[in-house]
Amino acid sequence: MNIALLPGDGIGPEVIAQAVKVVKAVGAKFGHKIKFEEAPVGATAIDLVGDPYPESTHEVCLRADAVLFGAIGDPKYDNNPKAKVRPEQGLLRMRQKLGLFANVRPTFTFPSLIHKSPLKLERVEGVDFVFFRELTGGIYFGEPRGRNEQGTKAFDTNVYTKEEITRLARMGFEAAQRRRKLLTCVDKANVLATSRLWRETVQELAPEYPDVKVEYEFVDAVAMRLIQWPKAYDVLITENLFGDILTDEASVISGSMGLMPSASVGTDNKLFEPIHGSYPQAAGKDIANPLATVLSAAMMFDYAFGLKAEAQAITDVVNKSLAAGIVTEDIAEGGKAYKTSEVGDWLA
Amino acid sequence: MNIALLPGDGIGPEVIAQAVKVVKAVGAKFGHKIKFEEAPVGATAIDLVGDPYPESTHEVCLRADAVLFGAIGDPKYDNNPKAKVRPEQGLLRMRQKLGLFANVRPTFTFPSLIHKSPLKLERVEGVDFVFFRELTGGIYFGEPRGRNEQGTKAFDTNVYTKEEITRLARMGFEAAQRRRKLLTCVDKANVLATSRLWRETVQELAPEYPDVKVEYEFVDAVAMRLIQWPKAYDVLITENLFGDILTDEASVISGSMGLMPSASVGTDNKLFEPIHGSYPQAAGKDIANPLATVLSAAMMFDYAFGLKAEAQAITDVVNKSLAAGIVTEDIAEGGKAYKTSEVGDWLA
Ligand SMILES: CC(C)[C@H](C(=O)O)[C@@H](O)C(=O)O
Ligand SMILES: CC(C)[C@H](C(=O)O)[C@@H](O)C(=O)O
Repeated sequence: MNIALLPGDGIGPEVIAQAVKVVKAVGAKFGHKIKFEEAPVGATAIDLVGDPYPESTHEVCLRADAVLFGAIGDPKYDNNPKAKVRPEQGLLRMRQKLGLFANVRPTFTFPSLIHKSPLKLERVEGVDFVFFRELTGGIYFGEPRGRNEQGTKAFDTNVYTKEEITRLARMGFEAAQRRRKLLTCVDKANVLATSRLWRETVQELAPEYPDVKVEYEFVDAVAMRLIQWPKAYDVLITENLFGDILTDEASVISGSMGLMPSASVGTDNKLFEPIHGSYPQAAGKDIANPLATVLSAAMMFDYAFGLKAEAQAITDVVNKSLAAGIVTEDIAEGGKAYKTSEVGDWLA
Repeated sequence: MNIALLPGDGIGPEVIAQAVKVVKAVGAKFGHKIKFEEAPVGATAIDLVGDPYPESTHEVCLRADAVLFGAIGDPKYDNNPKAKVRPEQGLLRMRQKLGLFANVRPTFTFPSLIHKSPLKLERVEGVDFVFFRELTGGIYFGEPRGRNEQGTKAFDTNVYTKEEITRLARMGFEAAQRRRKLLTCVDKANVLATSRLWRETVQELAPEYPDVKVEYEFVDAVAMRLIQWPKAYDVLITENLFGDILTDEASVISGSMGLMPSASVGTDNKLFEPIHGSYPQAAGKDIANPLATVLSAAMMFDYAFGLKAEAQAITDVVNKSLAAGIVTEDIAEGGKAYKTSEVGDWLA
């Protein structure tokens, strides 16, 4: 197995380092030969070579069987609307060039952390849903986009083809078949032409999945219900921008944001990353929580290699570390706070 | 004072009827001559004349000093992506033709209802912020929008001018000056050209309001922080679509969605409406909570007529009804549930 490592910015390198320890340990235990190849991305890559997703990094990803990604983003590039190169452009270019059209974002709870949820216990206990966010289309990439000549007017284009919607929706339908058989299509069909194509396309596909119940909800209603009654959801499918907002909203309800993994998958490539950001304030301090990245490595064994026992071994050891209190300061709560690297060593 | 009444669909007529009772009582007590003129809107207007915002209704609004609006939306028009006329089109046309460019959405808590919040008490206690959502621009109205010839590709256009951003932002700055002097500009400047124009424009205006602290946050981050720490916010400004999603998310955190009023204001016209929807399941049953509409009438006295004592009289009586338990079933909690009309009578 060839794994590309893209640590990126902020705490990225520290959390990736722990995932590497764990992946190596799994390799040793289960007898897999695992090779790693590291490459720069994000602000780190801008500083190195002036490009947040250099061609050389792309080639590393293409050669790999899976990509483990840390985080990108650096405050020095924020609040500067005129900056010419931004780390995020690298992320977007990477998603598009690797064809990672589906971002898979599970939300579930950890019994030992659920009390950290901002929601009341009865609302959040047992929450278990997964978003499939379209990741390479929509207003993130649509053309034309830009300004008029005088710079007084700006525009972006949201665009979707039936094909783009279909491939994402099918992943959602299939996931629903393996789960609780409920699919929620999230759109704004009462306003947007793109949303009406989403709804229409999903309606056309639904008869092929007769065991799946399909619901259609407006994005504003879902933004409410995710807080009011998140247990109502099983699988949600949505477009890129709505997915950006709603998956982040969803990420905080479980109280264990620092533990939530994600996968971004396409036809040929697969990338795994923690959903938390680059958390620049913590960078270099050996205090960041590595569990989301470690669990992303578990998702990698499952989704990229079909190795369920290996994935389960990682999930199990993460649960053990939680039970044993071998955790970083963000979830230590009065108990001893372990360093990022110590948690990684323990897990490995 | 000429007040246009647009009850609309579902529970709209019932809740508007209670607001009218209260407005009449205020008129009698404070010696104002108040005239009402009613007109159809939404599904009701489609059923009557085939148009969700008929020209005759528009004229009633233009002649009025303020518009009191109920709700629109009817399930028979949902899940039908090919429907030719939809109630929502009336709402959008109304906003645009009346030039209601700013939707003002306060979120605050009622001590007697705060336990109904899905959030833990310590997170939501004392929450007090207000959104200014741009309401007549952005992807709701941008052209081109539609499909390609084969119908396999759909597109929408998000577009903003500096002028549109400026007038909305100024309202936000001025509100911040009257409040806790913190303004949060919500955008997606790391991806969207329109958002970069928003951020740039707000940055240019900021020096004119030196007493206001300005923060810039991405829409996905705000979707998280609204749940994690909503007390952090004072005044938020944002574009139409982000505002749609975030104001609805915000509306459920206080636990008193059935009480939240709103205003939509422009240069010449002002409209006031409860933020809850048409709630079709409850229509005609005399069980809907009229308080949000009654409080919208209070906002009307304040914002449209500059009559603070009248507005305060309404707010006071609403608080008294809550304290006395003269409330509808949604907030009765084991106590006696009063009918919509009984609550209206008591308030009046
Ligand atoms: C950094 C940004 C461009 C990105 C996005 O909006 O997709 C991020 O918010 C995410 O969700 O991965
Ligand atoms: C009904 C719909 C068109 C409308 C909107 O999206 O603006 C509604 O959600 C609102 O927020 O008033």
